[in-house]
Amino acid sequence: MAELLLSAPGKVILHGEHAVVHGKAALAVALGLRTFLRLRPCGGERLRVHLPGVGVRSGWDVAELRALRGRLAADFDESKSPSTEQLDVLKEFAGIAADASAPDCLAILAFLYMYLAISAKYGDVPSVDITVWSELPTGAGLGSSAAYAVCLAAALLRACGAISCPLKDGEATARWTEEEMTLINSWAFQGERVIHGNPSGVDNAVATWGTWSPQIPIRKNHIIKKGREGLGGCLVACRVPTLRILLTNTKVPRSTKVLVAGVKEKILKFPAIMNPVLDSIDAISQECQSVLEAMAANPSPEYYPVLEELFDINQHHLNVIGVGHPSLDRLCRVTASHGLHSKLTGAGGGGCSITLLPPDTTLLAVEAAKRDLCACGFECWETDIGAPGVTLHSSSSLSAQVLQALSES
Amino acid sequence: MAELLLSAPGKVILHGEHAVVHGKAALAVALGLRTFLRLRPCGGERLRVHLPGVGVRSGWDVAELRALRGRLAADFDESKSPSTEQLDVLKEFAGIAADASAPDCLAILAFLYMYLAISAKYGDVPSVDITVWSELPTGAGLGSSAAYAVCLAAALLRACGAISCPLKDGEATARWTEEEMTLINSWAFQGERVIHGNPSGVDNAVATWGTWSPQIPIRKNHIIKKGREGLGGCLVACRVPTLRILLTNTKVPRSTKVLVAGVKEKILKFPAIMNPVLDSIDAISQECQSVLEAMAANPSPEYYPVLEELFDINQHHLNVIGVGHPSLDRLCRVTASHGLHSKLTGAGGGGCSITLLPPDTTLLAVEAAKRDLCACGFECWETDIGAPGVTLHSSSSLSAQVLQALSES
Repeated sequence: MAELLLSAPGKVILHGEHAVVHGKAALAVALGLRTFLRLRPCGGERLRVHLPGVGVRSGWDVAELRALRGRLAADFDESKSPSTEQLDVLKEFAGIAADASAPDCLAILAFLYMYLAISAKYGDVPSVDITVWSELPTGAGLGSSAAYAVCLAAALLRACGAISCPLKDGEATARWTEEEMTLINSWAFQGERVIHGNPSGVDNAVATWGTWSPQIPIRKNHIIKKGREGLGGCLVACRVPTLRILLTNTKVPRSTKVLVAGVKEKILKFPAIMNPVLDSIDAISQECQSVLEAMAANPSPEYYPVLEELFDINQHHLNVIGVGHPSLDRLCRVTASHGLHSKLTGAGGGGCSITLLPPDTTLLAVEAAKRDLCACGFECWETDIGAPGVTLHSSSSLSAQVLQALSES
Repeated sequence: MAELLLSAPGKVILHGEHAVVHGKAALAVALGLRTFLRLRPCGGERLRVHLPGVGVRSGWDVAELRALRGRLAADFDESKSPSTEQLDVLKEFAGIAADASAPDCLAILAFLYMYLAISAKYGDVPSVDITVWSELPTGAGLGSSAAYAVCLAAALLRACGAISCPLKDGEATARWTEEEMTLINSWAFQGERVIHGNPSGVDNAVATWGTWSPQIPIRKNHIIKKGREGLGGCLVACRVPTLRILLTNTKVPRSTKVLVAGVKEKILKFPAIMNPVLDSIDAISQECQSVLEAMAANPSPEYYPVLEELFDINQHHLNVIGVGHPSLDRLCRVTASHGLHSKLTGAGGGGCSITLLPPDTTLLAVEAAKRDLCACGFECWETDIGAPGVTLHSSSSLSAQVLQALSES
């Protein structure tokens, strides 16, 4: 088989973070920052994996992995969750402590699980070198683990022949069929389960389908049934145009669990005050979705002020429900001083924010905003939302930076 | 008759400004800043009025006023609105332009109307010197015109014998009976109508009854019937404890009419987003009223954090409905840096804010906050809310500053 180059996007929540935990809609969209994977056939009956982002460089004999698969003795399927027993065996095999939660350990576990499960179901994966490199920061609520799991699922399914190679000679990029994407998404979801225990399934869906063509097939009831607490729950995704944004990481560490518990406490303390705020956030998500769909059909600049107004309103609401942070207030003031509108995205209490960059924003204003944000100690990416989902690439379609990062293995 | 010294308080809206225009509850409370009136009998068949705050020093022959009363030829009553024709005659008499709206012109008009109407109904007011001086800034949404009208109504009603003089020898202060206050309030409302055209009646009710003893007899339905647009509408007042506050004037001028129209436009643009915010504000007013009633019964410091949280939430909501202002954001940041919580009060878009001063606030913190607020160009008063309504004073019960201000006539 030939070399494979593929990528999948991260995600941001435009509106509805936290409200989603309480049964409201949220709007997740694909981010322009992507995770890239290179799979190269190699000799020596070895499987090699290199994850420079989390400092992993490992390798196993294919025979050894086959024996391990035998020990797991499971009926692997894309609809089946990894069991605690299976994960314990994998941890022992990889020399990972039972309670390990570091990104490198979880990345190896997910890799081993997906490799063994996919090869068990569809046939052996040949000897390959796999390198995964990402533009996404980890642990920032940007779906980096889902982009990783989607890239891995697509590469492994392709390597064992379970899905086609849609990239024709001379084409820059190609995408799989709807049916193949459904399979990729299902396996990626199992990988996410290894990493997160009880993920909502939204991040892998966004990484698989992206958000610029068909509506992501996630329905409220599908996700609500999980009835979990945490970011996730009922998510609405949508057809969105490509919009330029600044993504800023305040680098203020926070615990999603503590923030979610704080919101719940506020709702219990002041139900008559807080429940209408959740209703208003729900309406913002719906309104934003309508505006984005209208923009996808008619990309007129007149829509931007509405998107900005929705950002401002929701940022206030997020402060009301108690997930703001002085660093985010500061960030909003800095971008406002350049005429730009921002809101936190994800768990809040620090973490990341998105700033809309309307088409009439001058390069000078963007540079000045980035400079001022960096001066606050924040990290800043100029990127976009509304990116395509999992994609196969010809090597000539990738930037020198990405190719360089993928060949440092 | 003897000299009269009396006072009435200004008001602040604790919660519900703007929402009240859309049928929600608002919470108006009496302010520690007061308007003072001194009435002294004088000879020469003259009526003299001195309003140092608005630069008025006028006088009329009592005979001349009697003739004017004849020209108006009206059946004056405390339940009757001043007519346009009556006001036109008064303007002509006082040499005031037909479209005059300056505070001094409106103060003279209200004075003349109330003097003529009350003397027509209850009998001649003897020759008197009247001086009114206020701690309240005018045009800042703090009910200064209502405090003025209540003081005038009480003084004129007393001067012509329509109400008693409840102040006994040796007493520092005294208040009128419920029935007498109802009469004072009704006449003050007519004075407010001369000044404001279509006032809600809330400001004069707060200035008459204050907010620390019996519940102000204003019921939702009473006020809602007016169906007017502007600050006013359905107001809930309540029994409140005395609470220390900082009242700050950003001195940023604003048009209440423009702000009210802006809110209406936002509601029409995003009804599903904005209506829940109004519901949440309504719930804040109700919650605050419950907390204040609980504090009146049991003045425990444990309630202050709840009041502060409600301030913060409502300040965000007021930003969402579009009546915030960078000066108010700055003000909130300054007070927050001293551990204090603020919200705008009244129309917003600049104007005034209130900052709660919990009992554990150190004098040093208050002084530092005041200094920093003044450094922003703001004007700042350390005062309280929950003040008594219209009150008769012995001269020994008034501060030297007030006595001085009242005798500079």
